[in-house]
Amino acid sequence: MPNAFAQFQPVVIKVGGSAGINYDLVCDDVAALVRDGQPVVLIHGGSDETNRISTALGKPPRTLVSAQGYTSRYTDAETLDIFAMVYAGKMNTRIVERLQKRGIDAVGLSGLDGRLLEGPRKTSVRAVENGRQILVRDDFTGKVERVNAGLLRLLIGAGYTPVVSPPACSNDGEAINVDGDRAAAAIAAALGARQLIILSNVPGLLRNFPDEASLIPAVRYSELEQALSFAEGRMKKKVLGASEAIAGGVEQVVFADARLEGPVRAAMAGRGTVISK
Amino acid sequence: MPNAFAQFQPVVIKVGGSAGINYDLVCDDVAALVRDGQPVVLIHGGSDETNRISTALGKPPRTLVSAQGYTSRYTDAETLDIFAMVYAGKMNTRIVERLQKRGIDAVGLSGLDGRLLEGPRKTSVRAVENGRQILVRDDFTGKVERVNAGLLRLLIGAGYTPVVSPPACSNDGEAINVDGDRAAAAIAAALGARQLIILSNVPGLLRNFPDEASLIPAVRYSELEQALSFAEGRMKKKVLGASEAIAGGVEQVVFADARLEGPVRAAMAGRGTVISK
Repeated sequence: MPNAFAQFQPVVIKVGGSAGINYDLVCDDVAALVRDGQPVVLIHGGSDETNRISTALGKPPRTLVSAQGYTSRYTDAETLDIFAMVYAGKMNTRIVERLQKRGIDAVGLSGLDGRLLEGPRKTSVRAVENGRQILVRDDFTGKVERVNAGLLRLLIGAGYTPVVSPPACSNDGEAINVDGDRAAAAIAAALGARQLIILSNVPGLLRNFPDEASLIPAVRYSELEQALSFAEGRMKKKVLGASEAIAGGVEQVVFADARLEGPVRAAMAGRGTVISK
Repeated sequence: MPNAFAQFQPVVIKVGGSAGINYDLVCDDVAALVRDGQPVVLIHGGSDETNRISTALGKPPRTLVSAQGYTSRYTDAETLDIFAMVYAGKMNTRIVERLQKRGIDAVGLSGLDGRLLEGPRKTSVRAVENGRQILVRDDFTGKVERVNAGLLRLLIGAGYTPVVSPPACSNDGEAINVDGDRAAAAIAAALGARQLIILSNVPGLLRNFPDEASLIPAVRYSELEQALSFAEGRMKKKVLGASEAIAGGVEQVVFADARLEGPVRAAMAGRGTVISK
């Protein structure tokens, strides 16, 4: 039964951009899945490398923190250029290269390509800095509200493996920074994927961050609101993404560790934090 | 008759990456063509911006000059990262964005995507430096020998406008630097395009470079060998590309100026240097 569905139900895998992630191991697993006839859509991050290149170019990263504690990258036009260079240029090209070397016919896409990831740009962003509320108006960030699933299906149907990266496309056609985990959730929902795997440099959701022994193995959709209260930093957006994916019809979201051998297979087998309805 | 063929015969347009090129004007024309039902494949460069970013990152560009006087960028692994960032990241994303803002559903591709541009990596490059022959072994450059025309046709057939950028894909799946003009020639030949437009920051082939009044309006294929003798610097590779395109079945190649209003329309009407069999 799962095999009969496989060609119409890609597994959607998001791999983060934090330090310590082993893209070779992730690509080994992706290649094995695709060779076995299981289509994959791979979404990747690039935050750590963006910080490094931004700093080297004399434009150190600046993080905005909302009143609710969500963090995002301050992305003016110059930062968006750097963001596109690292995500859609270096990271995407090198991941496609890794897959091509493994015999997988990957195609890299940013969210602007075919308006793959589309949604409104925020006209202004409220943030808290040094304890004071500030309003940022030159920020190019936004939210994914529509996914061009047709483009992904066109490519998958022709035997290609899509490798997707922010930036996304605003309703007016502008390049905008969007959260990669939530973009992955939108893709998984749009494709009717059964499983969304979110890999990062932690083993999953931790009750007492950063104590890895406090991993929570399973969370119900109804408990996600509560999970938000102890999710730290970037994990908050992953929890939000998981919630949006499940609300969009995805059966299971797994937060798992991208630093291990066989990271995708381990995640698909339920190693990490499994979130389900 | 031309209209009946239009949907199967894209115009292939290469726009360079030198200083002074106006991408907004090029995208205005590309958008008008696509709206009129004429499919376009756009290939772009990024050399000037790559030099700027390389220098800013403390890795100033280094040019290799062959014994025959052809120039190429010395591209070690670190340079290729920067090259991919600028070409496939910043330049490609911003050109796709310009087209999306004009209502054209562009899709950006590097030569690694679907092995769009594939060929051998040179295992070593001979060059002349300070009057002495040197042999460079850590260079990631190569030559396009195959084009995945099927991927371009798949996208064009679904209503997308491909925007293509180096790097290309070596036979072993590695990212390699290839010449953009010759890559455009290979694409035009593979698609059976009637016309290849090569836009740069000069009006065309000049008999006495840089005297723009010495523009040569027309060159026959049989005269290209001779044209090589007065082509300067980067123009040498354009002449080589034109020669390869016409040998591959393209009827007409036009070298034209990307700094003018209506650059593509002017070129299609024969303003510049027209090369034909």
